[in-house]
Amino acid sequence: MYPVEVLTLFPDSVSGYLGASILGKAQEKGLLGVTVTYVRDFAEGKHRVTDDTPYGGGAGMVMKPEPLVAAIEAARARAPAGSKVLLMSPRGPVFTQARARELAKEPGLILVCGRYEGVDERVMPYLDGEVSLGDFILTGGEVAALAVVDAVARLLPGVLGNETSSVTESFEEGLLEHPHYTRPPVFRGVEVPAVLQSGDHARIARWRRWKALQLTRERRPDLYARLELGKADMKLLAKKEEEL
Amino acid sequence: MYPVEVLTLFPDSVSGYLGASILGKAQEKGLLGVTVTYVRDFAEGKHRVTDDTPYGGGAGMVMKPEPLVAAIEAARARAPAGSKVLLMSPRGPVFTQARARELAKEPGLILVCGRYEGVDERVMPYLDGEVSLGDFILTGGEVAALAVVDAVARLLPGVLGNETSSVTESFEEGLLEHPHYTRPPVFRGVEVPAVLQSGDHARIARWRRWKALQLTRERRPDLYARLELGKADMKLLAKKEEEL
Repeated sequence: MYPVEVLTLFPDSVSGYLGASILGKAQEKGLLGVTVTYVRDFAEGKHRVTDDTPYGGGAGMVMKPEPLVAAIEAARARAPAGSKVLLMSPRGPVFTQARARELAKEPGLILVCGRYEGVDERVMPYLDGEVSLGDFILTGGEVAALAVVDAVARLLPGVLGNETSSVTESFEEGLLEHPHYTRPPVFRGVEVPAVLQSGDHARIARWRRWKALQLTRERRPDLYARLELGKADMKLLAKKEEEL
Repeated sequence: MYPVEVLTLFPDSVSGYLGASILGKAQEKGLLGVTVTYVRDFAEGKHRVTDDTPYGGGAGMVMKPEPLVAAIEAARARAPAGSKVLLMSPRGPVFTQARARELAKEPGLILVCGRYEGVDERVMPYLDGEVSLGDFILTGGEVAALAVVDAVARLLPGVLGNETSSVTESFEEGLLEHPHYTRPPVFRGVEVPAVLQSGDHARIARWRRWKALQLTRERRPDLYARLELGKADMKLLAKKEEEL
């Protein structure tokens, strides 16, 4: 059972997603254990204040260090030794499939959702790292935590079965996916490509690889530039679709 | 009121997040209107099947075109003219703050959550585009849709007030944020930097800019390389922290 703790000021924001669909089933099967902690329960005083105005002035509120650090320490005490404590923050390294794979090998995860735009800097020594979902601003770290739990959970043995393994590997090579088709054979006048109905598995594999390479080159030149293509791929790319 | 439609096979996955916190308040204030549509309601037959095995073989299931396209057409009929229909897909351009800004100016959004790994290609002509949350694989498009709604909603006038505007602009320049501090002045023996308690606003602004530039250079050389720094920034960067 892979244990995940989510520390948040908005438990209602995350519990629906974490309890539904594949993540819900993974918990029922005992493959994933998710605990959501309300950080405000760790704030002191009658009003349980969790944020305050910034030193030095300026707009925005900053999340106070005491409740977050207290919640982190409580989660660490419960979690398996070596669990990683990660703050969802636009200042962290951008999340990738490679990071998801690494995290899936950890003994557990403690994901800290602060106000995405400002957490007191003195929280940082209590973390093992930060994760950014990408170069955009969210209202809080909650969606980022959901993405991390989702991407990691689907890599845990048994969560998806073998159902989608090959598709994943295509992406993990740094390629976009080839197009997919399912029934009906004709949808509003558009047919499934003949090659996919040919039963010629070698040709289907060539077509899919060719499409994946073309799509990556066209849509994501940044990924394409990082590919280390072998001779077979170079030869394949030189062909036209009808020659495959 | 900015209308957003979310088309999904897992309404329970998204409604909690969409109804809580800032997004919930934005809806109460009439600034944002969110409609969640269960795509399975548009599937035909007794079993309302929404996915099927891929033509050409291989692992994984593919989302069928009919229910998705029917749900898209129903949403388009309800939504303001010119609303953008976007499929959450790892093949789309990666979501950024610039894209969030553009989308916030549209008349509305229709976000289509398919199986993240495979939607029948014949759905594509019914879309205005695709959005990828990043280079990682999710179980479905739902988290990506939540991220887009969140990032767009917080840019809508009145949703956040002026509370966080300046912080946002720092990121939109392509810089990571400077560190934040709030009360208490000493947390577990660590003090708030003296400069932030100095009341010298020009010096505070220099310190924050210097920190933001340093952090970006250190953590995100890719963003740093794209900055067009003026003379003032270059001079600032040449200084040591104690000279600011």
